[in-house]
Amino acid sequence: MLKPLGDRIVIEVVETEEKTASGIVLPDTAKEKPQEGRVVAVGAGRVLDNGQRVAPEVEVGDRIIFSKYAGTEVKYDGKEYLILRESDILAVIR
Amino acid sequence: MLKPLGDRIVIEVVETEEKTASGIVLPDTAKEKPQEGRVVAVGAGRVLDNGQRVAPEVEVGDRIIFSKYAGTEVKYDGKEYLILRESDILAVIR
Amino acid sequence: MLKPLGDRIVIEVVETEEKTASGIVLPDTAKEKPQEGRVVAVGAGRVLDNGQRVAPEVEVGDRIIFSKYAGTEVKYDGKEYLILRESDILAVIR
Amino acid sequence: MLKPLGDRIVIEVVETEEKTASGIVLPDTAKEKPQEGRVVAVGAGRVLDNGQRVAPEVEVGDRIIFSKYAGTEVKYDGKEYLILRESDILAVIR
Amino acid sequence: MLKPLGDRIVIEVVETEEKTASGIVLPDTAKEKPQEGRVVAVGAGRVLDNGQRVAPEVEVGDRIIFSKYAGTEVKYDGKEYLILRESDILAVIR
Amino acid sequence: MLKPLGDRIVIEVVETEEKTASGIVLPDTAKEKPQEGRVVAVGAGRVLDNGQRVAPEVEVGDRIIFSKYAGTEVKYDGKEYLILRESDILAVIR
Amino acid sequence: MLKPLGDRIVIEVVETEEKTASGIVLPDTAKEKPQEGRVVAVGAGRVLDNGQRVAPEVEVGDRIIFSKYAGTEVKYDGKEYLILRESDILAVIR
Repeated sequence: MLKPLGDRIVIEVVETEEKTASGIVLPDTAKEKPQEGRVVAVGAGRVLDNGQRVAPEVEVGDRIIFSKYAGTEVKYDGKEYLILRESDILAVIR
Repeated sequence: MLKPLGDRIVIEVVETEEKTASGIVLPDTAKEKPQEGRVVAVGAGRVLDNGQRVAPEVEVGDRIIFSKYAGTEVKYDGKEYLILRESDILAVIR
Repeated sequence: MLKPLGDRIVIEVVETEEKTASGIVLPDTAKEKPQEGRVVAVGAGRVLDNGQRVAPEVEVGDRIIFSKYAGTEVKYDGKEYLILRESDILAVIR
Repeated sequence: MLKPLGDRIVIEVVETEEKTASGIVLPDTAKEKPQEGRVVAVGAGRVLDNGQRVAPEVEVGDRIIFSKYAGTEVKYDGKEYLILRESDILAVIR
Repeated sequence: MLKPLGDRIVIEVVETEEKTASGIVLPDTAKEKPQEGRVVAVGAGRVLDNGQRVAPEVEVGDRIIFSKYAGTEVKYDGKEYLILRESDILAVIR
Repeated sequence: MLKPLGDRIVIEVVETEEKTASGIVLPDTAKEKPQEGRVVAVGAGRVLDNGQRVAPEVEVGDRIIFSKYAGTEVKYDGKEYLILRESDILAVIR
Repeated sequence: MLKPLGDRIVIEVVETEEKTASGIVLPDTAKEKPQEGRVVAVGAGRVLDNGQRVAPEVEVGDRIIFSKYAGTEVKYDGKEYLILRESDILAVIR
């Protein structure tokens, strides 16, 4: 299991289905970089200057929208993940 | 529903009607980038170094003026939104 | 009404009369960018790291000198305003 | 009267007499940018993160040395002033 | 023994076995820069502005994923190590 | 007298004697920029975010080593001085 | 004696013996910039925003590894030293 540190969050990128107007599924290079993901693991949160930790606002399983190009891609156990800082997450889809 | 994180705010951009002096409605590319929006969702606010959260000054439904080029465009449920930080919002129209 | 957020201030730019030595009023492009304004609306002030808000030092009606090129021009209700941060205001004229 | 905000200070630049070795007074363009001034007005001071204001170390009438190229030139009531931040003042001459 | 200072962590890089689809082991230059390591020594942690030290979240022996290109390579006692800041460690593998 | 503000320190640069191997004294342009000085005046110290002033670690008369190219040269009363921030002083020679 | 200020540390660089595989000692320009040193003097430590000084983690005599290219070279009493910030020291060798 991947346990992110501090304010880091591990996500799986969610491929959003993308078709042209005429219904043709686009090959990978013709699509925009995806912005959606599902939270896989959550760090303990960042430490404030008063010593307090701020628990992240997201939970495992949350579907999120994140900043394009944010984070670091890692491969673990044959699968690809993205490790973001919580501040790279824009919103949760509920 | 989109639930923004921290000090982020989700808005819908409000297209401001724009005519030339002679009353001709300008096509999209001839208009300035819009600066007005309506608040759709509000984050819980940023966390200060003393651990306190600062509730944003805007509420859902507020009509706002924001900094040009600020924020990230996202598409959700077929509609386009802009996710801003509260500090990108200049003023509320009341 | 425009209600600025945080430490932002809405001003009207004050055109300062400008004549050459021989008394000729200069056309607009020959003048320096104006630096004077009158305060139209005042935000609640910025929030310090201890959670306290700092009330701005200016009030509605104050005549001020501001940093050239600071702020964002906005048009509201047919009039032009400038939205500044309080720190862009150099001095009040009293 | 000009009342500077926060940690800002209004000064009059003091022209320091400058002659060449042979006693010729130099015309303006041949002189170095002046670094001396006299304090005309003092702001209330900057606000610390604990909410406390720090009173500036200079007083009206003080003769000071400031960083070259610092500050903003303003014209008020026919006279030229320089508005500096207190941190641009290097030393007081006593 | 190497005792890292502050929030620094000493790790050994873990070479991840890399074969092409046809089972050929790639020579070193054809491989990606490794991202996995094992923690060898842990600093006392960084000091917050309230004087408190934050103990690092990793322990000696932990297997970690770190940011590519982070840290400083050092040679000690004939072996190569990487000294990272804790914030360069993305996740622990548990 | 020059009274520096905040964490500023006034020093006189100490010219260190410099000869080539053959004993020839080098003219000014062939020498390295000097790094030694003697403290002439000391500011009250910088103000921390808790409102406390930190008294500088140097005293008038101290011989110091400072960062090359740091500070601002000022001429006062016919003599040349350098006004540094305390953080530009590397060490005291005792 | 050199007494460093704040969080500064004075070290002597330790030349690490460097031979090629065939046992030839390399001339100076063919060697990497050294990374090892011995602590000669230690500052009182940096001051936190709460007014507390943080005593450095190193002591006189410690053998250390530091960031390449960090610090300022100074010559004192015919010997060469390097003055670093404590944060440029990666680890102590114990």
